[in-house]
Amino acid sequence: MMNSATEVTRRSQKMRHTATHLTTVARRLTAERGLNGFTVEEVCDEVDISRRTFFNYFPSKEDAIIGVQPEEDLRRFSDEFLARGSGGWATVVDDLVELVIAHFESAGVHTAEHAQLMSALEREPKLLFKFMGVTRERDRQAMALVAQRENVAVDDPRAEAALNVLSILLRSTGEHYLLSENTHDFSTLLHERLAAMRAVLAPESPRKGNP
Amino acid sequence: MMNSATEVTRRSQKMRHTATHLTTVARRLTAERGLNGFTVEEVCDEVDISRRTFFNYFPSKEDAIIGVQPEEDLRRFSDEFLARGSGGWATVVDDLVELVIAHFESAGVHTAEHAQLMSALEREPKLLFKFMGVTRERDRQAMALVAQRENVAVDDPRAEAALNVLSILLRSTGEHYLLSENTHDFSTLLHERLAAMRAVLAPESPRKGNP
Repeated sequence: MMNSATEVTRRSQKMRHTATHLTTVARRLTAERGLNGFTVEEVCDEVDISRRTFFNYFPSKEDAIIGVQPEEDLRRFSDEFLARGSGGWATVVDDLVELVIAHFESAGVHTAEHAQLMSALEREPKLLFKFMGVTRERDRQAMALVAQRENVAVDDPRAEAALNVLSILLRSTGEHYLLSENTHDFSTLLHERLAAMRAVLAPESPRKGNP
Repeated sequence: MMNSATEVTRRSQKMRHTATHLTTVARRLTAERGLNGFTVEEVCDEVDISRRTFFNYFPSKEDAIIGVQPEEDLRRFSDEFLARGSGGWATVVDDLVELVIAHFESAGVHTAEHAQLMSALEREPKLLFKFMGVTRERDRQAMALVAQRENVAVDDPRAEAALNVLSILLRSTGEHYLLSENTHDFSTLLHERLAAMRAVLAPESPRKGNP
């Protein structure tokens, strides 16, 4: 059905596509020439947008390399998470995992993208601090979101635990996903890892539990 | 009782003390002057050991800054972990946490130490890659250890999950421990975080679970 919601989705997909393109080019140029070896204008030329449009996407060259998520994307993620409503802590992790997978699938995260980020960071290690800062800021926002939905204080250790679980699952899944011998899709690997984490954190375990 | 085991422990404590001292000095000099602003000899002079002794502790200046664990320490950790024997996956995480806490307490990890590492890394961001490499190598060894004790393949997702849980718990606990307003000890904070992680990963949760 072609309604305004579809229109918003389509526009947001186009924006995401442009943001991804900018990030791809910025990362490649960083890996090739270092952070000071290219200008924002050169990135814009390759992606065929104006300098002014660039700054609608990213506040700086560094941010384009890091690849901050477009605001609209984050808002949609938040809205969907809140709309599901509280269903206890186990559903918090399941909902986060499900939404992240849906997001990754629609954004089309590719192996090459991750490799490019690593090349850029190797050439300019100081970007790693910025990258870690962005990740931390996003984690902080997500923690506040979880606390809001579950109606607990923003510093409740469970809100932090839920996000920590999500971030370690994503990192570990990402690493396995990128292995050349991997044949599974992202979602399968992520659920396998979530099940393993539940297994090792089960409160009661049989005294003889091999394997 | 003064037996040979006590003797070994005493010697290993002295070695750990020297290693920690070398790392403290190397980190401070890195933060002050950068990686190429000082020599191994200068570190040795401050700690009052010979250049030759230095290389018994660390293969390079970078390793001294990163602060690799002495081999003997790691071996003791492994021995203790294996000696406890398999008791199912829940005990894997509990045993790891308990041994790490014991290790931290005997090594005397201080707030200042962590701050010094951060200063050194800010001055020389490329060390971060080396640091991450060391951490990853240590994680890999620990994963093999867990797989051995639980009698599963080295790539069993549960072995990785157990180590991932441990590393995220340590990171999160470390961050809270270092906050100026913190009044809890490391062990209390770590157990609080472990309980929170178990709560959010409980397989069954009541449909109305607030707060």
